[in-house]
This record gives sequence, C-alpha cells and structure tokens, in this order.
Amino acid sequence: MILKYYDECGSPTKTRLHEEFLTPLELTSRLRPISQQYAPGTNDDCIADIKTTFRHSLKTMHPLFFDKLYFGSDPIGQVAELVLAVLNANTHVYHVSPVVSVMEVECIQVIGKHFGLKKENIDGTLNPGGSMSNTMALLLARHEHFPHVKQDGWQNDKPVAFTGAQSHYSLRSAAMICGMGAKQMVSIPSKEESFQINTEALEESIVWHKQNGHKPFFVNAVAGTTVMGAFDDIIVLREICNRHGLWLHVDACWGGFLTFASPEHQGNRLRGIELADSISFNPHKGLGVVQQCSMLITNNKPDALRQCNGLDAEYLFQPQNGGYDNGNKTLGCGRKGDALKLWLAIRKHGLDGFRRIADNEIEKAQHMTRLINDADDFDIVVAPMGTNVCYWYIPAFFQDNPDEYSHERKAMVHKMLFDRMKNYGHCLVQQQPLEEFGLPNFFRLALGGDKTRPSDMNVILNETRRLGRDLAPDDVDAAIASS
Amino acid sequence: MILKYYDECGSPTKTRLHEEFLTPLELTSRLRPISQQYAPGTNDDCIADIKTTFRHSLKTMHPLFFDKLYFGSDPIGQVAELVLAVLNANTHVYHVSPVVSVMEVECIQVIGKHFGLKKENIDGTLNPGGSMSNTMALLLARHEHFPHVKQDGWQNDKPVAFTGAQSHYSLRSAAMICGMGAKQMVSIPSKEESFQINTEALEESIVWHKQNGHKPFFVNAVAGTTVMGAFDDIIVLREICNRHGLWLHVDACWGGFLTFASPEHQGNRLRGIELADSISFNPHKGLGVVQQCSMLITNNKPDALRQCNGLDAEYLFQPQNGGYDNGNKTLGCGRKGDALKLWLAIRKHGLDGFRRIADNEIEKAQHMTRLINDADDFDIVVAPMGTNVCYWYIPAFFQDNPDEYSHERKAMVHKMLFDRMKNYGHCLVQQQPLEEFGLPNFFRLALGGDKTRPSDMNVILNETRRLGRDLAPDDVDAAIASS
Repeated sequence: MILKYYDECGSPTKTRLHEEFLTPLELTSRLRPISQQYAPGTNDDCIADIKTTFRHSLKTMHPLFFDKLYFGSDPIGQVAELVLAVLNANTHVYHVSPVVSVMEVECIQVIGKHFGLKKENIDGTLNPGGSMSNTMALLLARHEHFPHVKQDGWQNDKPVAFTGAQSHYSLRSAAMICGMGAKQMVSIPSKEESFQINTEALEESIVWHKQNGHKPFFVNAVAGTTVMGAFDDIIVLREICNRHGLWLHVDACWGGFLTFASPEHQGNRLRGIELADSISFNPHKGLGVVQQCSMLITNNKPDALRQCNGLDAEYLFQPQNGGYDNGNKTLGCGRKGDALKLWLAIRKHGLDGFRRIADNEIEKAQHMTRLINDADDFDIVVAPMGTNVCYWYIPAFFQDNPDEYSHERKAMVHKMLFDRMKNYGHCLVQQQPLEEFGLPNFFRLALGGDKTRPSDMNVILNETRRLGRDLAPDDVDAAIASS
Repeated sequence: MILKYYDECGSPTKTRLHEEFLTPLELTSRLRPISQQYAPGTNDDCIADIKTTFRHSLKTMHPLFFDKLYFGSDPIGQVAELVLAVLNANTHVYHVSPVVSVMEVECIQVIGKHFGLKKENIDGTLNPGGSMSNTMALLLARHEHFPHVKQDGWQNDKPVAFTGAQSHYSLRSAAMICGMGAKQMVSIPSKEESFQINTEALEESIVWHKQNGHKPFFVNAVAGTTVMGAFDDIIVLREICNRHGLWLHVDACWGGFLTFASPEHQGNRLRGIELADSISFNPHKGLGVVQQCSMLITNNKPDALRQCNGLDAEYLFQPQNGGYDNGNKTLGCGRKGDALKLWLAIRKHGLDGFRRIADNEIEKAQHMTRLINDADDFDIVVAPMGTNVCYWYIPAFFQDNPDEYSHERKAMVHKMLFDRMKNYGHCLVQQQPLEEFGLPNFFRLALGGDKTRPSDMNVILNETRRLGRDLAPDDVDAAIASS
C-alpha cells in the first residue's frame, strides 16, 4: 500500500489527490465500527482499515497538494517516525530519552545559527505545533514583564500585546489562553502595498495604549503570513520594541525555511531576525519534515524557558542530567522525540538540501507569477514577497465581460472551483478572501517542501481552466442564491 | 535493527534496557554532528545515526522498563505511526484529513462509553499529551464560570480551583498558563490511609474561600495518582461540586485504563466517573498505544470546546464539514492524526484485549504485593489501590539492624539502587519520596501495558537484591556526604 501510494504520488498528472472523497457520513459507513470490536481482529481486518485509510485520505505527498502550509513527508522522515514509534521515546527527562534529548538541543542550535543567532545565546524547545510555540513566546514575555502572574495571576495589570492583522489566529488564541483576553492582542492593520504590518500604526497604538494606562509588553512579527506570505520589517519592529521596552517575537513558522536560501535569493525577507527575542519555526512546513516538528527558539534569554514554565517537579527533573531534562522548559511533561526527524532530514539531505528547497520554491513562485502575468484568464493579487502566489481566475465569459465579474461572483467562482478541485482531486489549492482589504476569494498557492516541479505550475493553471471555463453568470448566481 | 530490538525486548532477563548508558557529553561525542552536514549524507550515514539511536536509547518496549507511566508500544501502533507519517495527515479540517477526523470522533465515543457516559453527551478531542488535556479542562471551566476572560481577560475575579496534593503538576501548570496563577490552584491534603484527596478538607477550603470573597469554580479529581496510584472518591467529589456549583474534572490519564477491567477486578476505583464534567485519559499510558495519544472527553457540555477555544477562523473551519473540523475545538491548529493508533489498537486487540490488560495488571499488582509482604527484605508502603506497587528495599545489614535504617539512609539507598539500575540496565523502576507524608524514597512499580509476565515480579525483586545486598551504613553515609 505504501509503495502504491508512492507510485501514485510520483505520477501527479495521472493520479488524483485521493481515490474517493466522501462526506463524514459516507465515510463512517465505509469504516466498520470499532465500538463492538470485543474480540481481537485478524491481520486482514487491520489491513482493511489501513486500506480504507489510504483510499480516502488526501495524498499530502502528491506534488499538487497545496491546500495547507505543509506538504507530504519524505521517506527519511517516515523512517524516523517508525524508529520513534518503536523506541516510544519521550523527551522529558534525559535518562529515559538520552539520544533524542541530545538531538533536540543540537537541532535547535543548528536552526538558531541559521537565523543568525549566536551559539551561546540560543535556547529553545520542540513543541507539538506552531500554535504552542507562539503561545509559549507570549508566556515568556508575560513572565519577563509580569513575573507575579505565574504564581499570583493577573492583578489588574492592563497588559496589551500587538500583532499584525495578517498574523496567525494562534496569537489571539494565546492571549485568550493566558488570561489577558483575546482583545488585548491588538490587531495592527497591514500596509496596503505589501501586506506587512504597518509599523507606524503599531507605534501609534503602543503610544496610545501607554498614554491610556495600559502596559504594552509584546509584539509579534510574522515572517511569512498565512495568506499572502508577507514578511514584516523586523529591523523597524526591533527599533520600536527597543524604544518601548517590548519583547519581539517572530512567528517564522511558515516563512522561516527561507533562511536557508542562497544569498542571491535571500533578499531582505528575514533581515533582522537575529535581533528577535524569540522565534517560532515549523520544519514540518516549508522543509517537508513529517508533522509535528515545531520549535521555539529564544535569543539571549538564558534560563527563561525553565523559569517561565518550570514548576519544580523535582521528583522528575534532576540537575544531574546537565540541563538535558528538556521537559522542564515546556508546558507539558512528555513529548514525542520529534528532533530525530529533523536530525535525519539534515543528515540525509544536508543543509544544502534545505538551500535547494528554499531556492527552488522562490524560483517557482517567480515562475508562477510570470505565467499568471502573461495569461489573460488569470490575475495576480500582488507580486509575492515569499513563496505564496495569490491569484484570481477569470472564467471565459468574464474575460469577455469584465464588468460582469462582480465581487460576489468572483468570490463564488473561487469557492466553486475549490469544491470541484476537492471532489475531482487532480490538484488542491487553498482559496480564501482577505477581509482586511475587502478582497474577494482568490487562490493561494503556497510553495514549499520541494516535491513540485516548475512544469507543474502550468498543470495547475490548466486544471483550473478546465474546471472553470464553463462558469457563466447564471451558474454563479444560482450558486450564490443557494449558498 | 528493529527486529534485533524486538528480539532483545523479548528476552528481558538476558538483555539490558540499553546497550550503553552515556552522559549527555559522551553521547554528543558519539553522534557525528549535523551542524556541518552541508552535502547530502549517504544512506549509510543515516543508518549509522539510527544505529546510535537504537544503541543508546532506552528500550521502553522491554518488559522491565518501569521508570515512567508508559511502556513500549506494540507493533500495530508502530504500523499506525508509519501510515500516519506516510499520509502526513493533520487533524484540523475534515477535507484534508477525512479518515483520521472520523476516527477521532469515533474513538472518543468508544472510550467515553466505557467511562459510562451517554452517547449523546460525549464530545472531546485528542491532544498532544495529558498536560494539555488537563489545561483544556481548566479553560473549559474558566469559560463556563468567567466567560468574559476569553476576550477581556481576568477582571479581579478572584478565581480559585482545587486539586489534591498527589495530583500531577500539570494542574498547577494549567493555573499558571491560564493567568489565574499557580497559587490559586489550591492543594488539598490527602487522606493518610489511602492517599486520596481529603474530601472534608476540600469542602472546608471551598467554604473558607467563598467566605473570603474568592470564587471557586473547578475541582480536579485523580483516577490513578502519579506516585501511589490512588483513586479519588468521585461520588463524594461530585456531591461537593454540586453543592457549590463547581466543574468536576477527572484526570484519568494514568488510571483510566482500568475502566476496561472485568467486574470482579473493577472495584470502586472509577465509581462515579460518569458524573464528571470532563475526563482526561491517555491511551498511551496504561493501554500501551504509541505516544502521543491523549484525550479530553467532555460530558453533557455541548459545544463547550468550540465556544471555549474557537476563534472564528472562518477561512479555516467551515460548517459544511458537519462538525468534523475538529481543530476548531483545540488550542492549536494542526494536530497529528493520533486516532489511527487507538483505532487500530482496538481493531487488533479488541476491547477484550484492553480488558485483559487491565485485569492482568491488577492481578500482577496483587501478586507483587503478596511477594513483598512475604519477603523479609522488602516492605510495602501501602496496599495498592490501582496498579502502582510502592515498596522499600532493606539491604542485608539493615535487616539485621533495623534501627540503623534511618530516614536519610533509606532515601539514599533507593537513589543509589536507581542509579545502579540506570547504569546496569536490567530493569528500571522509578523511585521517589512522598513529601506530603514525609516518606523517604521508595520504589514505585507502575504496572500497565501488558508486556510484563507475573514471573517478572520476582525478577525485579531479585535484581534489586543483587544490586543492593552489599549496601552497609558506611557506603550509604559516604554517598550522603558526597551528594
């Protein structure tokens, strides 16, 4: 089954993203339930379940899967995951997981160094997901600015933090979780031309909040926003944070992999990231490591993680393990040994392999942008800063009658195309609106993970054409009416 | 390598828990670093790393590994993890992970039913670890009692929550994270005879806090405490919570697997758990599913998870997926498809297999208790409520001179024995003190996962004898002096 899966993913233009897409109800009826499985099942029973799983799951390893910001894993990651499962290693205390504990510390060093941090300033931890990394960054800043909260709780402190309107919703979630309230994660508008955080609006908001008795303490910058792939200006944000004494976190979960790009492709995207107080980064996104593999790196904040999160569970975490009881830095206790996946990915592909991924994805984004600019039936939303290419499709009728392609119809056309892609299964590109700028739904092609060839860019456009060329006002209006 | 690992774990009395235990520094020197790995490595390079990983990791699948509350995974879980890695499935939105999303909902139903919950009252989510499940339970209770906190933050609300002194440190951590402060997670002493939470002391504390203007809202009960394996009296706790209008959470991460025990073994341990508002449970602990596999189940709290944690990321979570966009209930966004591991474990072993695990572990705990009670050189701490057997070893000299076996020496003997076990590697049993009752270090044998035979109980005692019989006051005092 695994080999068949590999074969099918290796022939992207001939195979579909799934063998059959079913609704939850249909799928439930295909899976023989487990609630009455009292006696042991045979191996064939198990294989039947695994077959159903393969048959109806999406092939994320398929080069035309672009729905989310992750991509199919590569074989070395699958081997690593199997080894981890056999070992059942748990990265909390060194003496039960010596190897993955050492690998975790080393992986954080290697990635931290690529972000330009000094070796002696680097600390961090792997986490089950970027949302947790961002939440931990907010908690670190909270502990630096409001150290009493850890033990005593918020004391009418009037905390306020700032993030761009285009940042991930986990920042608001973090503010919700940590008890300051989601509203206190102030949303700063983006610049119209670049979708970066508007740094002037940010500073005005900080000043206003200070004047009104609030205590700003945290700014989140994004390196690679979810939708547009924009990179905030970290240098300017660092200056603002310095002026006002705020913690600067960079959410590089998605765009951080471009740190590996060669100088001619690097550009200014990540300029200044070495000045951040903390960085979150998901190797399971752009670099194609098997999920989950997410990290929070701190910069020149010695022992901050342990001081913030440690609760002196002394029976568990013992100084004799030389600081390798990594669980003492986390919010949880046990964690999977995700470092092995990143370690083996570096061993197998080399850091030059990561450079190749970064360079290829940037080149493909540029290539796709050219194709769209050259086509009459596609329209670019904005020239990409990173590797997210955002574009509209214009069905045949509307090419001839551009005035008829209203906001509402444009939005529905992209929803309909997405549903057709989802059910037809030759490629899947995420689509969404951008409410901040009133942009109706468009496609967002997020390039990462290095499974896609440049020639696939045309495949995607042609498949979109094939699925959409019949769309005319009546069909679209009917869909709007019934939605 | 995997087959060799299986072989070695299959001959527990002849093999060690690791081939060689190294310090972090020694281990780092054995692992060729990745920081300079620019060019791709060969397959042999990767295999060398994997060999080192196997060589120096602990064999958690070894039947004499008892250091933590988890055990080696079984082969079906390893297969499941490989399938998950190949699919790279991410359980946030249905349309990219239809199969694992449906499996997650079904697994929560099956486990919830075994806890006695009514089908229509069950909701829940899988999480990366029991600490997160407990944290989410506290957040649910917070949202029910202080709904303004989600958006506006704590407003001098004076919240207070309660947990037993023997509960897991993640409860204090949850109070720290959620901004009420760790001190507001009030620690209630245990009953001396049973190590259960003292329900009278709890109610007194609730009343006192109410009289002093605090707002109690949450009580954590434990089903299977970390050290002693005690089960709190859920019936009485439910009555107290009803009287005072509090959320009752049961942390059954460890002891929950005994819900599968047959009636003659079941006892009162989990009596009343069907009355809880929420239950956390880790199939990766007692049931031996590959880590991580943890769940939070809510009882008759329709839509509470989504209301508490959802942030209307509408571009992501869409109603058309019929409530199967499970990510909308969680604190994160993407999650691994852990449900496949539990699903296949049920298919392979059947629910009767889980009953067999529960029954076997209870029987072994009783057997071990008899062996210890019958031996002159071991002393039981207390008759076990669940499957944690806690005992002291008495070296030869101290058997003859019991007055010489002081508190301090007893503590050091167990630390020394643990270090010998750790380095010698034939078995590994956790040891710790119990500060609440001033008990010096003792061994805690936590039985779960069904890899251990009854005859291994004697193996453990004999290995402890072999390692400890030479210990006399001078050696112990020297160790104390140099510690």
